[in-house]
Amino acid sequence: MAVKKKIRAAIVGASGYTGGELMRLLAGHPRMELTVVTARQAVGRPVVDLFPSLRDCCPLVFREYDPVELAAAADVVFTALPHKAAIEVVAGLAAAGLRVVDLSADFRFSDAAVYEAWYQEHARPDLLDLAVYGLPELFRRRIVAADIVGNPGCYPTAALIGLAPLFREGLVAAGRPVFIDAKSGASGAGRTLAAGSLFCEIDEGLKPYKVGSHRHQPEIVEQLGRYAGVPAEVLFVPHLVPISRGIVSTMYVPLRQDASTEDIAALYGRYYGAEPFVRPLPAGEMPNVLAVRGSNFCDIGFVSAAAGRTLVVATAIDNLVKGAAGQAIQNANLMFGLEETAGLTGLPLYP
Amino acid sequence: MAVKKKIRAAIVGASGYTGGELMRLLAGHPRMELTVVTARQAVGRPVVDLFPSLRDCCPLVFREYDPVELAAAADVVFTALPHKAAIEVVAGLAAAGLRVVDLSADFRFSDAAVYEAWYQEHARPDLLDLAVYGLPELFRRRIVAADIVGNPGCYPTAALIGLAPLFREGLVAAGRPVFIDAKSGASGAGRTLAAGSLFCEIDEGLKPYKVGSHRHQPEIVEQLGRYAGVPAEVLFVPHLVPISRGIVSTMYVPLRQDASTEDIAALYGRYYGAEPFVRPLPAGEMPNVLAVRGSNFCDIGFVSAAAGRTLVVATAIDNLVKGAAGQAIQNANLMFGLEETAGLTGLPLYP
Amino acid sequence: MAVKKKIRAAIVGASGYTGGELMRLLAGHPRMELTVVTARQAVGRPVVDLFPSLRDCCPLVFREYDPVELAAAADVVFTALPHKAAIEVVAGLAAAGLRVVDLSADFRFSDAAVYEAWYQEHARPDLLDLAVYGLPELFRRRIVAADIVGNPGCYPTAALIGLAPLFREGLVAAGRPVFIDAKSGASGAGRTLAAGSLFCEIDEGLKPYKVGSHRHQPEIVEQLGRYAGVPAEVLFVPHLVPISRGIVSTMYVPLRQDASTEDIAALYGRYYGAEPFVRPLPAGEMPNVLAVRGSNFCDIGFVSAAAGRTLVVATAIDNLVKGAAGQAIQNANLMFGLEETAGLTGLPLYP
Amino acid sequence: MAVKKKIRAAIVGASGYTGGELMRLLAGHPRMELTVVTARQAVGRPVVDLFPSLRDCCPLVFREYDPVELAAAADVVFTALPHKAAIEVVAGLAAAGLRVVDLSADFRFSDAAVYEAWYQEHARPDLLDLAVYGLPELFRRRIVAADIVGNPGCYPTAALIGLAPLFREGLVAAGRPVFIDAKSGASGAGRTLAAGSLFCEIDEGLKPYKVGSHRHQPEIVEQLGRYAGVPAEVLFVPHLVPISRGIVSTMYVPLRQDASTEDIAALYGRYYGAEPFVRPLPAGEMPNVLAVRGSNFCDIGFVSAAAGRTLVVATAIDNLVKGAAGQAIQNANLMFGLEETAGLTGLPLYP
Repeated sequence: MAVKKKIRAAIVGASGYTGGELMRLLAGHPRMELTVVTARQAVGRPVVDLFPSLRDCCPLVFREYDPVELAAAADVVFTALPHKAAIEVVAGLAAAGLRVVDLSADFRFSDAAVYEAWYQEHARPDLLDLAVYGLPELFRRRIVAADIVGNPGCYPTAALIGLAPLFREGLVAAGRPVFIDAKSGASGAGRTLAAGSLFCEIDEGLKPYKVGSHRHQPEIVEQLGRYAGVPAEVLFVPHLVPISRGIVSTMYVPLRQDASTEDIAALYGRYYGAEPFVRPLPAGEMPNVLAVRGSNFCDIGFVSAAAGRTLVVATAIDNLVKGAAGQAIQNANLMFGLEETAGLTGLPLYP
Repeated sequence: MAVKKKIRAAIVGASGYTGGELMRLLAGHPRMELTVVTARQAVGRPVVDLFPSLRDCCPLVFREYDPVELAAAADVVFTALPHKAAIEVVAGLAAAGLRVVDLSADFRFSDAAVYEAWYQEHARPDLLDLAVYGLPELFRRRIVAADIVGNPGCYPTAALIGLAPLFREGLVAAGRPVFIDAKSGASGAGRTLAAGSLFCEIDEGLKPYKVGSHRHQPEIVEQLGRYAGVPAEVLFVPHLVPISRGIVSTMYVPLRQDASTEDIAALYGRYYGAEPFVRPLPAGEMPNVLAVRGSNFCDIGFVSAAAGRTLVVATAIDNLVKGAAGQAIQNANLMFGLEETAGLTGLPLYP
Repeated sequence: MAVKKKIRAAIVGASGYTGGELMRLLAGHPRMELTVVTARQAVGRPVVDLFPSLRDCCPLVFREYDPVELAAAADVVFTALPHKAAIEVVAGLAAAGLRVVDLSADFRFSDAAVYEAWYQEHARPDLLDLAVYGLPELFRRRIVAADIVGNPGCYPTAALIGLAPLFREGLVAAGRPVFIDAKSGASGAGRTLAAGSLFCEIDEGLKPYKVGSHRHQPEIVEQLGRYAGVPAEVLFVPHLVPISRGIVSTMYVPLRQDASTEDIAALYGRYYGAEPFVRPLPAGEMPNVLAVRGSNFCDIGFVSAAAGRTLVVATAIDNLVKGAAGQAIQNANLMFGLEETAGLTGLPLYP
Repeated sequence: MAVKKKIRAAIVGASGYTGGELMRLLAGHPRMELTVVTARQAVGRPVVDLFPSLRDCCPLVFREYDPVELAAAADVVFTALPHKAAIEVVAGLAAAGLRVVDLSADFRFSDAAVYEAWYQEHARPDLLDLAVYGLPELFRRRIVAADIVGNPGCYPTAALIGLAPLFREGLVAAGRPVFIDAKSGASGAGRTLAAGSLFCEIDEGLKPYKVGSHRHQPEIVEQLGRYAGVPAEVLFVPHLVPISRGIVSTMYVPLRQDASTEDIAALYGRYYGAEPFVRPLPAGEMPNVLAVRGSNFCDIGFVSAAAGRTLVVATAIDNLVKGAAGQAIQNANLMFGLEETAGLTGLPLYP
């Protein structure tokens, strides 16, 4: 049995939590090897300086971003840069013939106008047509063929896996918003220094923020519309909770016609029964982020309420794995014809 | 200036977190003094055994419940017993001429049928007519004259302060439920030994539970109906978050007609501008439980969304204070003609 | 009964956690009123912008530091500035006739050489002779007469209360260090933006730092020496734990001659039996920071071990109260002849 | 290449956190398969009922303990029972020809008298001679040949890896105790219902307990003595901190003669340079439990202090992995001639 050659991977912008999670997962990937990591503010420093957990497990040193070097050393690049900064880098890497999974928001929108309304001008709107939205459970076939994948936001991942089948099946009543009450751990805000990210500001706290004005709302709306072929209306309200990892998205869905919890169980069973990373829970059970922590799983719970007219769906993911680094690797696995679960078989840490 | 005689207070069932919080607050109350505490399973033990925080501050020893002794030693009794167990005790205390603030669910419902549908048979439905629902911001005048006050549930307190003005003013669209997505800290489950209350089951976790089936839902519905004079439909979904104290209740309210955030600011200003414990936030700001921790405050934030058709209201309280012990003392202050804020002026601990 | 005039207090450098805690405590002080707060980076902003907990409780706006204005508006000033920056400010305030409690390290050392060895050059070593080390349990009489009080560090407060009586009584074996294994919550690092203070870096973490090289070590050594009249040798090892408030200091004391736990109980009883804020625990019980949170208490537990040759003493304080703001107010109370406990009677929040 | 047959493993007493961790790790083990799990109080319930994290990953149902069935279905048994209960079970399994890794304290002591002094009478002292103490870094050769392995306690694992080389090399001064100040997360207390294990009793708390009287102290002493050939004196003081997983053990070691930090670095390098799971840190760096969470690593930091006369050593482990389940699998790997790291290559979760 010939040993297959490994796919060479690089990470651009690897000093944050998403970068660290990519390194953790790639270190255990049977078919990929990490060859280069870059981080502008840490050039020359060993990875272990910023990630003591990786001691003895990652001998790399942070380098400057250099597309020529990357083209020589890698087959796939994960870009984990702030939005806007990613555009030029991804364009350069794609021009150099590299396949890219971009973890910023820059390649998640098909419609440049929506991106520009919520972010800023897009320097390369031409690339948006090439990029594929990297939610494998919805768009697997397109991802397989993609050169640029826009890796979904953490909140949209949790929301879309729960809502997409309901919209596609025409179950959602028109004219009334779906309310998405999402709760996220602190790593969602990244490793950037910010007053609101200090331990003492978050510990024992709990608060909503950016009600209806978070940039993940238009991302959810656009992808629901593309997947279901009908316009979707949602109101997205994120909350910050004192945990490091994890999102629970509790969604209040007005139904077009009454449906029982069992009806919904059957529906999710059809959509997700064969999915390796989506776990619909038994009817009536609700998900807990603790049961997915560290893994690429998305758990779904659901209850038909208000006499069958409203469906409450709750999803739980680890925002750094299924909501970022894990999903990025899942996408890269698809792009390179590997087993979709390769490198992603670690089970959740409980407790 | 004659020193006024202090009101003598007793606590029945004082070994849990609500009991401890009553003791903490009463120790600093300028016009009440705690004379007796009972706890069936701790008879003979000093209070400090169960509450090391009270060392040197509370010399009492837990005693058996004895209504005759209580009638001799107290003017007001706070009963912090499990529901059902409270009925007979409250009846006995009332018969002995004591005024009672009951922190169980047993005297919160006017309609015995609703209580019996969600809890169990009510042994003394006749007393329900005498009891007053102890939410001062809604029912202050009735509380002043009450002999038995049913102290509100923690979740209902957070929900009703946000919703009651909206229902009374006729702003809520009929025929569609208000969604109440509530998040609570672990002390809401009490000090009882339960697998789900272990540190390792809650820490770094986050989950919805009892979707639409929590007993606080009918309590919210009944009080909204009584206060506003119209039937209210709500769907209540509680969540458990890894903090010790605090509730945030995020509420999605379909409006009868469009209203701006400023309209709502004016409305809450009218209702709560003179309230000592309710703090409407500046338009668009959202509350954080950390900003009310340890205090009797209820903060309210609100945003008009979905083009003015939906109002998002979020309230934050400390479930052990405004959601339990603090509100109980606020009620007792009213019943005895004291300053409403007496013993409740401690400011929140931040961080 | 004539109402006594209130002492007017100001805070210089009030935007951090110590400043916020001073504001919380002063708001409930019966004999002090806060008249001015300054914070260079927040000039013109209302206090509530930085401390949402103080909404409706503190109408002040942060101002620029202006010694003339302070001299007109205040009787006592609490300076909560970084070390070095405090020197000139304190000198200016003292020159203007104000009494000052300084919460930096700048006036904690009698010996300028020690200060300069661990911090930097001291611009006004002449003032060190005037300043009094503000640990009332050790130096109460001198504090009463002081114009400048150097408020102790949080770690030294926890260490000294436990160790000082042992050294003064000559119980500690010479020639061997006392080991001080201290554990602190995150607020000890302040509100400054620093990578190590991010929620995700601290949550679920636990680590020693600055072994034997923390600046609080020489402070402990100097004060032990001054109080006991003999040189003290300690090795101080701080740890960071994921709580917001609190220090536990576990100390391993080699005894000159065997002593039983009961001997030590008697000793602490003599020293602290009449102290309002020090609570020696029953023999064998150990303190928990949760039992002092939010209060000015210092709990002490102790066990004679290793056949009576070693004493293990553990103290617990709230680093923001007894370790900073509460102790500062205790000092100011002494300086102005007020009841020592004024404004400090709030009980710990448990849980 | 022939596929090698997998070793069949069973877990007796699998409903606690150690059992869950064994299941998590065995699910990813390339050469072991889990065939039977027992749990007396959960007979007939699917594993996923107690461990929602294992949904879709472990189809087993808890069974009654039946040595005949186990002998037919397994090659190795991990027993995760309370001490005392394990003795008879291990004896029965050994009699049935099974190899056993016991995670209780029942087979950790060579000297029955020590066990009986700290626990209770030992029903099968004859088996203690057969059992091997399962700390591979110290006793690897004996483990390879063992039929019964007594898996070390979590605290002793953290202490011994740090101290054993120092004692064996004769570096520790005689006549003075080594102080072991250990801090553990809450999972160390197991999943048993206990008042002290409630979320609200631990969250934001921090306290020492069982000073000098914890049962892990004699275990440390016995193994140090056996490994180093000289008597060891230690004083062990555990603390409870609000994290789910992890132990930091900070140790104060009086040195026989002065040693520099570099000397110690060289020493640990000699002992652990080739060890797959022990990571000595660069001189002066201190370990953080967050950097080992979820992994089988033990990190060691050390600083020579007090002018070279005292060594401060700190170790960090995940108590459920290197302190329990991971080490048990490491032992089983050795017993069955597998790669020592098999099933244990998952990297730490950071954050």
